[in-house]
Amino acid sequence: MTAGKGSIVKAGEAMGFKQLFDDDSSTYTYLLWDPSTKDAIIVDPVDIQVDRDLKEIESLGLNLVYGVNTHAHADHITGTGLLKTKIDGFQSVISDASGAKADIKIGPGDKIVFGSRSISVRATPGHTEGCLSYVADDESFVLTGDTLLIQGCGRTDFQGGSAEKLYNSVHSQLFTLPDETIVYPAHDYKGRTSAKLGDEKKTNPRLGEGKTESDFVEIMKNLNLSYPKKIDVAVPANMRCGVPDVE
Amino acid sequence: MTAGKGSIVKAGEAMGFKQLFDDDSSTYTYLLWDPSTKDAIIVDPVDIQVDRDLKEIESLGLNLVYGVNTHAHADHITGTGLLKTKIDGFQSVISDASGAKADIKIGPGDKIVFGSRSISVRATPGHTEGCLSYVADDESFVLTGDTLLIQGCGRTDFQGGSAEKLYNSVHSQLFTLPDETIVYPAHDYKGRTSAKLGDEKKTNPRLGEGKTESDFVEIMKNLNLSYPKKIDVAVPANMRCGVPDVE
Repeated sequence: MTAGKGSIVKAGEAMGFKQLFDDDSSTYTYLLWDPSTKDAIIVDPVDIQVDRDLKEIESLGLNLVYGVNTHAHADHITGTGLLKTKIDGFQSVISDASGAKADIKIGPGDKIVFGSRSISVRATPGHTEGCLSYVADDESFVLTGDTLLIQGCGRTDFQGGSAEKLYNSVHSQLFTLPDETIVYPAHDYKGRTSAKLGDEKKTNPRLGEGKTESDFVEIMKNLNLSYPKKIDVAVPANMRCGVPDVE
Repeated sequence: MTAGKGSIVKAGEAMGFKQLFDDDSSTYTYLLWDPSTKDAIIVDPVDIQVDRDLKEIESLGLNLVYGVNTHAHADHITGTGLLKTKIDGFQSVISDASGAKADIKIGPGDKIVFGSRSISVRATPGHTEGCLSYVADDESFVLTGDTLLIQGCGRTDFQGGSAEKLYNSVHSQLFTLPDETIVYPAHDYKGRTSAKLGDEKKTNPRLGEGKTESDFVEIMKNLNLSYPKKIDVAVPANMRCGVPDVE
């Protein structure tokens, strides 16, 4: 008989982590990997940055398994479709609740495993119905997509958005994590790359200490945001995980 | 480029689990595995039951990775040394704090990964200084070794035992798990195979509701237990993970 496959992950051993930025849409893309096996995932890749991403992957020696989207984005086209054409066996992943096409559909409580590391899935609807957040296996960080942004949150006025749902998602699914957990959002428009969750619990001007659900609904109602410039192209494309329509 | 290795563990997907009993020492041995890859570990195997264990492993189609001990037992000889001679690449695992020999030494916060599933390690000294408990990745169960037994606990009067430490281990490391978590101990002398942790929190006659640390110390002081019949053979053997001394 021959032994199976396993490993010991030592306490405090950090997951491989790299944050990348797309200037055009202010989108953060994340590479996460098992430092021992180099099995990796990419979260929220942007189509026009796929060449950069592939160079990073190669220089880090990563074996990419999945391209995971936090939701069907309205402001850029996901890179997962393009990555599928570059990496044999690479699969796209999105929430079942998004209604989008992908190789694998996931939901709350599922775990995405790469090598001996993983992220677990929390349903955080509100910006869109299918929004997910991803918690690192050691709770050291959470990828919040467009649900919780640094000192802000995603808009809730289109694509099945709901201010009530977003408020409840943040309070029941994100603010219940430890204060030390680092928030990595899908966007930032002011150059901030991360925040401590404890600080957002206290000082997020829309969702922090003292803000009730009805305060939040009122704030979101009065934002008067303009229509996203890429939504009419990006949303239909992202419902197919970034794969262009074949005529 | 080719994709790496990963998988999706769906919410609620149970780990493979089999409990086995050694009549002679009233010891429970556990087989745990990833249902998709069949990568598996064995916890607290008993030397005289290794043939039975190997038959189980074969009939379940498991690929055993590690033989994990909760501590250096005083009442039976571990089967990990014998299993090493039967399975190529199989490795023995025990706590660093036990002072015992093994291929891999682990400590609190470490994770033992097999396929895409894992158990996490909690330090629960008291029965011995090196006792560990193992929590399933979904917190559905905990292997408590000789720390917490059903309606009881391990003795604390030899091998570096300490009633104070055991009390604190149970309260800080085990009773903090959800009420629904199932307790699987290393022994039972009355045919009970498991208990709900919530019931032990309430009704364990030594450690449950209303029992203070000084109550517990007093109870343990007055047990008047006899000297374990196998301790002089078992402990030295188990300090070498069950591998006999070569003359």
